[in-house]
Amino acid sequence: MDMDIRDKRIGILAPIAWRTPPHSYGAWETVASNITEGLVARGYRNVTLFATKDSITKARLIGWIEKGYEEDKSQIPLVSTIYHIQKVMEMAGEFDLIHNNFDFIPLGFRRLIKTPMLTTIHGFSDEDIKRVYRDHKDAYYVSISDSDRDEKLPYLATVYNGIDLSNLTFREKPGSNLVFYGRIHPDKGLHLAIEVAKKANMPLIVAGIIQDREYFDDCARHFDGKLIKFIGPVNPQQRDELLAQALCVLHLNTIPERFGLVLAESNAVGVPVIAADLGSCREVIVDRKTGFLVNDVDEAVEAVNNLGKIDRRECRRHVEKNFTIERMVSAYEKVYQEIFRREEQK
Amino acid sequence: MDMDIRDKRIGILAPIAWRTPPHSYGAWETVASNITEGLVARGYRNVTLFATKDSITKARLIGWIEKGYEEDKSQIPLVSTIYHIQKVMEMAGEFDLIHNNFDFIPLGFRRLIKTPMLTTIHGFSDEDIKRVYRDHKDAYYVSISDSDRDEKLPYLATVYNGIDLSNLTFREKPGSNLVFYGRIHPDKGLHLAIEVAKKANMPLIVAGIIQDREYFDDCARHFDGKLIKFIGPVNPQQRDELLAQALCVLHLNTIPERFGLVLAESNAVGVPVIAADLGSCREVIVDRKTGFLVNDVDEAVEAVNNLGKIDRRECRRHVEKNFTIERMVSAYEKVYQEIFRREEQK
Repeated sequence: MDMDIRDKRIGILAPIAWRTPPHSYGAWETVASNITEGLVARGYRNVTLFATKDSITKARLIGWIEKGYEEDKSQIPLVSTIYHIQKVMEMAGEFDLIHNNFDFIPLGFRRLIKTPMLTTIHGFSDEDIKRVYRDHKDAYYVSISDSDRDEKLPYLATVYNGIDLSNLTFREKPGSNLVFYGRIHPDKGLHLAIEVAKKANMPLIVAGIIQDREYFDDCARHFDGKLIKFIGPVNPQQRDELLAQALCVLHLNTIPERFGLVLAESNAVGVPVIAADLGSCREVIVDRKTGFLVNDVDEAVEAVNNLGKIDRRECRRHVEKNFTIERMVSAYEKVYQEIFRREEQK
Repeated sequence: MDMDIRDKRIGILAPIAWRTPPHSYGAWETVASNITEGLVARGYRNVTLFATKDSITKARLIGWIEKGYEEDKSQIPLVSTIYHIQKVMEMAGEFDLIHNNFDFIPLGFRRLIKTPMLTTIHGFSDEDIKRVYRDHKDAYYVSISDSDRDEKLPYLATVYNGIDLSNLTFREKPGSNLVFYGRIHPDKGLHLAIEVAKKANMPLIVAGIIQDREYFDDCARHFDGKLIKFIGPVNPQQRDELLAQALCVLHLNTIPERFGLVLAESNAVGVPVIAADLGSCREVIVDRKTGFLVNDVDEAVEAVNNLGKIDRRECRRHVEKNFTIERMVSAYEKVYQEIFRREEQK
């Protein structure tokens, strides 16, 4: 008789830049948390989260690093990274599956352990990183969007990130502000959002962590506290408040988006998103239904004037159908099953 | 009957920042090369050097990275590092001993392989790195000086670095210049050497790679091409020419030296060294015999005036007795024997 998959010993390997789940920013840690909690909610009985020691989970937590290296700067990130990964790998034999959400370094250990390892590729931070992934063509991979795939890698599936709806309250009534939130980095196009706000002459609220200080300083010249206001990073509760005030979210990314948690989170509140038509945005946003896909600032300004055409309930429904934790975990369950099937055939 | 230790399959793991041996700078690669070539010269028949693919050795060379990441900037150093180490670890079973000269990351793989791993700690680049070393208290460690030891680690021995004398020609006649060579970084005290040259009113030739650009720019204000002249990095042949012109070498390191290849190389040519009395300098230089150990700039200036008291032949003899490749390899042989003895008892 087949073992109930919910008895399998699953280890979820989270990054340790931030707590899991993060206090505010920390995209990969957020997803690792959602997978872990989603598996527990689905009735999985042997789930272990490998994360910082201050992490919070209903699964078993195992960690060796007190706090994330972005939150406690006394540690060298690479030292903590190797330490954390090494310790996980040394106890790999106690698990039926290691689900790696910690980028490419765990792959280096993959052939030295017997436990199968699934790697969700949350994004290629550089072309050069593909060297390691491609060396592991026999590994199990999941992509987080169809667009963020390397054509030379085998994938078991695309599994869209699922988001926790508990701090994303649906708001039928639109707010009056344009909103930008996320990492403040040229990739995320805050400078373009500022341009849109000025051209549309509508107030813009900016939230997020500063990842590129020089770029931030450049953008900050426009923060007058009236038309354009910066409020710093937001935690999930503050984000909920922020989105309540949003007429729309501007997400004018300048490089292909890998998934775009911001897109789904905004839609979950009923907020349409004006997004650059690059990468996965087309997979998360339904053009003219849950937002607008645009190619430049002028198209974005035009979209702002067309926001009345968006049905906010449709935005919420779209997320509930496609981007919940339950849906993500159900998709991962299929991937896990496929892995166990293949492993048995070995 | 015991197997001849020279038939043991020894893998020397070199770093991949530079070629092994390096074209000019590359301290750890230099030592890894000297160990490898020294073992071959001693009659070891199964030595493998793991290094960049453009490396040169009389042993078997295995590599996966074309050029060092400091010489080919198209690669991400961490990606090449993980790739190189991973590949070595995956073939560890083909070796009787892995001799790690590549810092702390290989230790992360140590408990996943069956082959014993000896790690020569070429220096702790940060206190935080000791976390990983201390997690491997059951590992085999060698220190490169008695002073560069962490009191919480077990060591099998101190093995001083051995240097290749073939490009270090003994010069009975002193040159007329003060010489500084090595990494240009505050740790190495170029600013103090400049002060000494000015106070002694004696010409100083400066050679080396620029590791700290801001610090270099600061020092460069004093490079007038007359009293103080900068000539850039030197390869071993150029270093030999440089030392031929040296009255003494100034090595006024501002942090404890870990070993100090420069000290032994200079002495090998017959050149006395005026060194800061910090860390291992006291182990490499014999005060008032092969140079002077000083505590500040004034003592260094005084030492310059006393250089006539140093017997240059004694400098050479001191190196020939203590810091040759043969002596180093003979010491490592004892360490290897001890490791094989302990492994057999397991």
